Amino acid sequence: MTTYTAPLQDSAFVLEHVIGFDQLCETLNHSEITVDLAKTIIEEAGKLASEVLSPLNIVGDQKHPVTSAGQVTETPGFSQAYQQYIDNGWPTLTAPEEFGGQALPNVIGTAVNELWHSANMAFALCPMLSQGAIEALIAHGSPGLQQQYLPKLISGEWTGTMNLTEPNAGSDLAAVACKAIPDGNAFKIIGQKIFITWGDHQMTPNIVHLVLARLPDAPAGVKGISLFIVPKYIIDENGQLGELNDVNCSSLEHKLGIHGSPTCVMNFGDQGGAVGYLVGEANKGLSYMFTMMNHARQSVGLQGLSISERAYQQSRQYSQERIQGLNAQGEKAAIIQHPDVRRMLMAMKSGTEAMRALALTAAADIDLAHNNQFEQSEKQQQQKRVELLTPIVKGWMTEFAQELTSLNIQVHGGMGFVEETGAAQHYRDARILPIYEGTTGIQALDLIGRKTLSDNGQSLKQLLAEIQSTAELLTNHDNNQLQQIGEKLGRALDHALTATDWILENAANNKLLAGNVSFDNLMMMGYLVGGWLLAKSAHAASVLIDQENDYGHAFLATKINTAVFYSHYYLPRVSQHKDIVCTGLVSILDLSAEQF
Amino acid sequence: MTTYTAPLQDSAFVLEHVIGFDQLCETLNHSEITVDLAKTIIEEAGKLASEVLSPLNIVGDQKHPVTSAGQVTETPGFSQAYQQYIDNGWPTLTAPEEFGGQALPNVIGTAVNELWHSANMAFALCPMLSQGAIEALIAHGSPGLQQQYLPKLISGEWTGTMNLTEPNAGSDLAAVACKAIPDGNAFKIIGQKIFITWGDHQMTPNIVHLVLARLPDAPAGVKGISLFIVPKYIIDENGQLGELNDVNCSSLEHKLGIHGSPTCVMNFGDQGGAVGYLVGEANKGLSYMFTMMNHARQSVGLQGLSISERAYQQSRQYSQERIQGLNAQGEKAAIIQHPDVRRMLMAMKSGTEAMRALALTAAADIDLAHNNQFEQSEKQQQQKRVELLTPIVKGWMTEFAQELTSLNIQVHGGMGFVEETGAAQHYRDARILPIYEGTTGIQALDLIGRKTLSDNGQSLKQLLAEIQSTAELLTNHDNNQLQQIGEKLGRALDHALTATDWILENAANNKLLAGNVSFDNLMMMGYLVGGWLLAKSAHAASVLIDQENDYGHAFLATKINTAVFYSHYYLPRVSQHKDIVCTGLVSILDLSAEQF
Repeated sequence: MTTYTAPLQDSAFVLEHVIGFDQLCETLNHSEITVDLAKTIIEEAGKLASEVLSPLNIVGDQKHPVTSAGQVTETPGFSQAYQQYIDNGWPTLTAPEEFGGQALPNVIGTAVNELWHSANMAFALCPMLSQGAIEALIAHGSPGLQQQYLPKLISGEWTGTMNLTEPNAGSDLAAVACKAIPDGNAFKIIGQKIFITWGDHQMTPNIVHLVLARLPDAPAGVKGISLFIVPKYIIDENGQLGELNDVNCSSLEHKLGIHGSPTCVMNFGDQGGAVGYLVGEANKGLSYMFTMMNHARQSVGLQGLSISERAYQQSRQYSQERIQGLNAQGEKAAIIQHPDVRRMLMAMKSGTEAMRALALTAAADIDLAHNNQFEQSEKQQQQKRVELLTPIVKGWMTEFAQELTSLNIQVHGGMGFVEETGAAQHYRDARILPIYEGTTGIQALDLIGRKTLSDNGQSLKQLLAEIQSTAELLTNHDNNQLQQIGEKLGRALDHALTATDWILENAANNKLLAGNVSFDNLMMMGYLVGGWLLAKSAHAASVLIDQENDYGHAFLATKINTAVFYSHYYLPRVSQHKDIVCTGLVSILDLSAEQF
Repeated sequence: MTTYTAPLQDSAFVLEHVIGFDQLCETLNHSEITVDLAKTIIEEAGKLASEVLSPLNIVGDQKHPVTSAGQVTETPGFSQAYQQYIDNGWPTLTAPEEFGGQALPNVIGTAVNELWHSANMAFALCPMLSQGAIEALIAHGSPGLQQQYLPKLISGEWTGTMNLTEPNAGSDLAAVACKAIPDGNAFKIIGQKIFITWGDHQMTPNIVHLVLARLPDAPAGVKGISLFIVPKYIIDENGQLGELNDVNCSSLEHKLGIHGSPTCVMNFGDQGGAVGYLVGEANKGLSYMFTMMNHARQSVGLQGLSISERAYQQSRQYSQERIQGLNAQGEKAAIIQHPDVRRMLMAMKSGTEAMRALALTAAADIDLAHNNQFEQSEKQQQQKRVELLTPIVKGWMTEFAQELTSLNIQVHGGMGFVEETGAAQHYRDARILPIYEGTTGIQALDLIGRKTLSDNGQSLKQLLAEIQSTAELLTNHDNNQLQQIGEKLGRALDHALTATDWILENAANNKLLAGNVSFDNLMMMGYLVGGWLLAKSAHAASVLIDQENDYGHAFLATKINTAVFYSHYYLPRVSQHKDIVCTGLVSILDLSAEQF
């Protein structure tokens, strides 16, 4: 087990110098929110993360939640930690003021959420899922439902869950079979949901389940799915908690990782029907889910960053302490002196920093897309950017986290394979990320289909044009390191343009072909965007380094160096994925199922 | 849990048409050994693997070995399975006839070992470690020690272990501190060894520990390490098992994977000294270890193939059965119809086949290097090839197995993260492979240093010239698929040549620089060699496909198709790694330890 420290300086640098936080807040008409306030908030969150949540991470791994008589008891210590978390007001950070929230920008919420997931991903999933329920109700709930549920969800007094998946409806939600039968003003919900994160626990007096189900007369497929709210305890006419609803957790999954997060099989209506209330209009459940999807998917992408940061911190500490072998001077050396260990550390460090820059950039874009100061057309423009970046954040960052958490094991050698070290837990925990909230395959199809082919590449090419500007700025710089970064970025950009043109020409009318190359297109864009944002970071550092600044010379020099490493080590992957895209991978369509 | 079937056709095809098995046996002056005999042996092994070892794989994962009073009790069922394994004579397959072996070629042993590791890697580690002890004694033991130990080790009546690692001596064996104090004709061994695979169990009446330790007057560092044999039970003058030696297992590691394999902390000499016997000469222990290293490291590389094959078989079965989403015709479809699932399956299939071709090629090269029909110079030539390929087999195949076992989880979606499915076990088990028997970093340094720079790239360039011939053969072929493969291989080869020249020019006198790029050099060579052997496989299939043959048209067409896929999907990685090598990654040397 190792300690965790919030990467305060790194987060602040991205906010201040990559995102342009103060300018962003002015644009959002919140000039009272400054980067200094953001830093104070992150620092406070860091204390709870390091001191309370982080030590419970390994406890959750070893002392799984247990289920008995349909109720789940969470890992010892989690309930007290949750109480501290809500007592400090953390769930209210970005929620609307009218329901008790602090209405801070989403980008601050994202910077703070990074810390929770680094400290204890299994724990942090609980408020993350509540967030989904909150957003669904804000966007689509009636004023009555909002008044009844939102204040307690936002304060954290109750938690929320998302009930989508069924045994035969995973990636394909068209197959949802759970039933909703009208019953007066409410509905009887009957069916089974699986893989329900934090579906039950004893940390709060009530739990608010959001459930996808079908009305009796609903059309088949995705157009016949409605969204319901099903509280664990029914709320009586006085707003008090009444009787236990007809919903229970029939079992818990035995999982590879995130053991501290109960993954429930939820039975609705074993006794005849759980009382549920329709959210919004009938048969629009799936489209409601889509309105929350960008935020939810970005949250999972963020977990990829968080767990990679945690893994990196562990590797850094171990490699500074572990003595093994001789250095170039023939002296006994800490392994951080060995070049291949440094390669692994730099791969983790630069990858993590690229992910952080992307997570916060995409989070800020959500703020801009919701900015009421903008004209409608400008909001739409921003929304397109959010929708373009979301599958990259979710898909690329979660895949990337597999590699980086694996490197942490490798840095530890044999000790990495021993569970007590903790490196294995991060590796196991990370493995869920490319699966839940839409697998990488789903993200890849989303990026190449809805986000690229459907607008003929327009939105993507705008992004590529911005990357081009950055590449040119750096290529023409007189600093040799920036030049190197600029040149590598420019070359990678050319590859991405080639691949994009290939896709627009060849895959537009060929769904199978688009499917073939979708994964490589996603990964290609991920590495490129990561390189772009680190290039911006290096440029900002080079401007600051000669000025009076809060960061110090070593920190800023490291920022530039890290971007150089990324451009040498990761940008060649853009070319590799381009090469694959441009073959069309047609050989995978030739084989019959039996030839595999 | 899924079933496992030995890939009989695939193994036979590689032996017959990639290695040229009958020709090989003639060269070895064993023309009585034919490919038909090899097939029969593999088929028989396949039965034990599928029916006995494979069902015990998940049992070993769930019911760990336990330790009590210094003795380990293995997973229930393992002892009976081991008895069947030795009753069938499997450990004797490739051992010398004078000690009861069957003296079959190493390449057959390798093809058979693949199956044990696929079926149950934790179990198969036990005979794999015995093999190390057998080789050490054959190469360096006195006739007396050989007579006393070899027949029982080779029959499998006793097992063997390798005791190298200590808490402060992992990758750096120069730090070995275990002591050996002369005591009459024997030695008293005192010290602690960690990470000892199958260090104790109850499956056999005795266990033969090979232990690295230092004599009192030994020089410091690697030149002062001697090799000792320490039996669990001391053998009396009549060759009968006598009293329990002063050696015990003080604890078992709690590991990420291979739970069925007890990983022991072994204490030697708690009661004053374990009785040990010197193997060979004093102070030559480490060089003795090196003589076994090629075989041992190739065995671990083989495990990378085995676990990837097992994972692939599971993905294939699941994707043919799991119905989810619609196919291109808008019908409910098994997921094998979705392009991105096919991409993952082909990535697993082609990667696994490339690994098998390499594992068997390298195994056959060991046969040739030991071939007494050859002149000394020809043996040396072959030995150089073995030494060149070994770090690639160990390093690349074990790293590759991480990716392929991860894809198996991804194909299963949420079910892949649930332990009962079994996909997670393969992923966890695989994670040890790039660590033990020399980490990937050690393999990478071996390849770039001892195997490349030390002969100025001569041995490597011979290999590259052979690859060039294959590329030209296919590029000039009139079959369009072979042409594609040939062109991609030729391009990849050019990249590898560029990188090799860069290394020879820039890293020859700069150890740090060689270390920086060693990993990427290793992976580059791995993907290239894999592509070369699949190109040879495709060429052989194209020759056979129009003739009367045992394989059938679909099988041979699939072989060609698989090589096309590999050349499109994996060969671009050669260029990517070349790009990295040619930067020198100097940025990783710039940072102080504190800047990380």
